[in-house]
Amino acid sequence: MTAQASFNPKAFRDALSTFTTGVTIITTRNSDGEPIGITANSFNSVSLNPPLVLWSLAKSAFSLEAFSANKHWNVHVLSTEQEALSGLFASRGEDKFAGIQLEKGINDIPLLGNCTARFQCRTAFMYEGGDHVIFVGEVLGFDKSELPPLAFQSGQYALAARKPREGVRLSSIEEHAPECSYTEDLLGYLAGRAHYQLVAFLRTLLQNHKLDEHAFFVLSVLSIQDKLTLEQINHFVAYTGREVNLALMAFLQKQGYVVLEHRDGKDRYVLTAEGREVSLEHVALAKAVEEQVTEKLGAGDTQALKILLKRLITATDPGIPDLWVAEPTEKSA
Amino acid sequence: MTAQASFNPKAFRDALSTFTTGVTIITTRNSDGEPIGITANSFNSVSLNPPLVLWSLAKSAFSLEAFSANKHWNVHVLSTEQEALSGLFASRGEDKFAGIQLEKGINDIPLLGNCTARFQCRTAFMYEGGDHVIFVGEVLGFDKSELPPLAFQSGQYALAARKPREGVRLSSIEEHAPECSYTEDLLGYLAGRAHYQLVAFLRTLLQNHKLDEHAFFVLSVLSIQDKLTLEQINHFVAYTGREVNLALMAFLQKQGYVVLEHRDGKDRYVLTAEGREVSLEHVALAKAVEEQVTEKLGAGDTQALKILLKRLITATDPGIPDLWVAEPTEKSA
Repeated sequence: MTAQASFNPKAFRDALSTFTTGVTIITTRNSDGEPIGITANSFNSVSLNPPLVLWSLAKSAFSLEAFSANKHWNVHVLSTEQEALSGLFASRGEDKFAGIQLEKGINDIPLLGNCTARFQCRTAFMYEGGDHVIFVGEVLGFDKSELPPLAFQSGQYALAARKPREGVRLSSIEEHAPECSYTEDLLGYLAGRAHYQLVAFLRTLLQNHKLDEHAFFVLSVLSIQDKLTLEQINHFVAYTGREVNLALMAFLQKQGYVVLEHRDGKDRYVLTAEGREVSLEHVALAKAVEEQVTEKLGAGDTQALKILLKRLITATDPGIPDLWVAEPTEKSA
Repeated sequence: MTAQASFNPKAFRDALSTFTTGVTIITTRNSDGEPIGITANSFNSVSLNPPLVLWSLAKSAFSLEAFSANKHWNVHVLSTEQEALSGLFASRGEDKFAGIQLEKGINDIPLLGNCTARFQCRTAFMYEGGDHVIFVGEVLGFDKSELPPLAFQSGQYALAARKPREGVRLSSIEEHAPECSYTEDLLGYLAGRAHYQLVAFLRTLLQNHKLDEHAFFVLSVLSIQDKLTLEQINHFVAYTGREVNLALMAFLQKQGYVVLEHRDGKDRYVLTAEGREVSLEHVALAKAVEEQVTEKLGAGDTQALKILLKRLITATDPGIPDLWVAEPTEKSA
C-alpha cells in the first residue's frame, strides 16, 4: 500500500472501483413523456424510516434535465440475466427502450421486468456533489424477485459468492500442522473431491447399466458427436488421463450401447437408441443432482461457481477440442 | 415479482440488501482524541473532480457526535482478510481498537492496515437523510493494495466472482441443439473437467514415480494420517469410488513408499521417508499449479472458487471422515 503523491484520476478511479457494488438502471420520463433510462452503480440505501435511497448523476449527463424536472423515478437492481441491458443503458444510444416490454409504475414511470428488486421513488432532496448531483428519493413502492443480483467490481461485472456466517471448513482442525503441507485448502483437492462427490450420485445408476465413469464419458461424447473413430473419441476424453481401448468399445458394443459402422473409409462408433437412452438417463440424473446443489447453494452462487470453474478450465486448458462443434478435426495418426 | 401492498420494514430491508456492496470501516477521533470506528456499507463514490465520496450514518449512532465534530475521517475498503474486523467494528464494543496497529493519517486520524483501498477525507457537506445523516467528503489522499476486497450481499459476506468482459464459454457453439441435453453448462461436467485438467499437470511427475492418481491419493492420505489400516485408508478414499486393495498396497511397499507394521494388534501402513518425500513433491507441484491459476484468475476469484467448492462439497458430502483429525474412527468390519 503506497500513498499517492499526486492525484492521478485513473489511480483514483481504480481505488474507488475496488468497492463492490450492484448495478441498477434508473428510469423516468422527460417532459415529452419519452422514457429515459441510465445505468448507475452509485445507488445505496440511506434511511429506513422514512424510506430513502440515493444515487448520483453526472451534471454533464444528457438525462439530468429529465431527472431534475420529473420528481418520479424507478430504481431497478439488475439480476445476473441483465448484463446486456446494463451495457445498453450505460451507452448513449437513442433508442434504448426499443423492443423492451415496459410495465407502468407510479406516475407512469417505466418499470423493467426480470430485475432482482425495484424501488419506485419520488425525489426528496437534490444535493450538490461536485461534478455530480446526489438524488435522494423517498421510496413509494418496491418489489423483489428471487433472481440473483448482478454485481460490479474493479470495472468488471461479477457475481457475489456468498460466505455463510459460520464460515466454510471441511475439517474441524482450525490450523493444520505446518509440516503437513497437504491441506483442505488445496485447489486440486477441492476440485477432485467436488468431482468425485458429484459422480457418487450417479454410481448406482451407472452400476445398473454396467458402466464405470470412463465408459460413461465415452457414451457422453458419442451422445454429443456421433460417428467417431476410436482416435477421435480418445481425442475428446484425453483430458481424463485414461485411454479408451478397443476392449472397452467391444464391451459397449456387447451391451448394445454402440455399433461399429464403416463410413468414409473408417471404422466409426455410432450410439444405438439404447445407448442414447442410457446416456440421457445419466444426464437427467446429473441435472437433478445439480438442482439439489442449487437449492442448497442458491442460484446466484451456483452460477458464480460455474463461471469460476469455466475460467479455471480455460486457464488450465491443454487444448481440448471443442466437443460441441459439428465437425471434429481428425488428428493424423 | 409481486408488489408490496404495505411497507413491511423487513421486506424493505431484504429488498435493499439485494444490492451488493463492499464493506468499509470509517474512522475518526472524538473530542477527547480517542479513536472512533464503525463498519459501513453505505459508502459510494460521488465525484471525480472535485474528488468526493459519501456514506451515511444513523442519527442514533453513538459515533454521530464524533463524526459531526471532527471534519476528518478515513474510509477503509476492507479486504477479504478483514471479515472479523468488520464484525468487530459493527459491534458496540468499547475497545474496538485494542491490539490493532494504527498508522497516523492526515490530522492524526487512525489508518488501519491490510485494506484493499483507503480514502482520507474531510467533510464537504453533511446532508439530511431521514433517520441517517449523509456525509460527503472531499478525498485528500488515498491508496490501494492488491488485496481482494470483501463484499456484502443479502446480509452475508461475499467475494465477487468476476466475469470477464467477453464472457466465458468453453464451446464456440452459442446455442446447443435442444435435443443435445448434455451441455458444457452441466455442473458435473465442469467439476470433472476442472479436476482432470488440474491432475494433468501432475501426470509426468506421477509417472516418474510410477504412480497413478489412485496410488497418489493413498500416499496423500498417509502423508496426513500415518499408521492406517487398509480399512481406514479405504474409508478416507471411498469418495473416489475406487477401492484400495492389497495389490496396490503391495506395489507401494515394493516401490519403497510404505512399510507394513503390526501395531495395536492390526496391520498398519506407515509412510517411509521416501514415500513422504514423493508425496511432498506432488503437493509442491500442485501448489505451483495453483499459483499459476491464481495469477490468471486473480487472488479474489481463486478464493471465491475455493469457498464455493467447499460449499459444494459440504452440500454433497456423503459423510466423509475428517482426514485432518488426529484419531480416525475405525469402522467395524
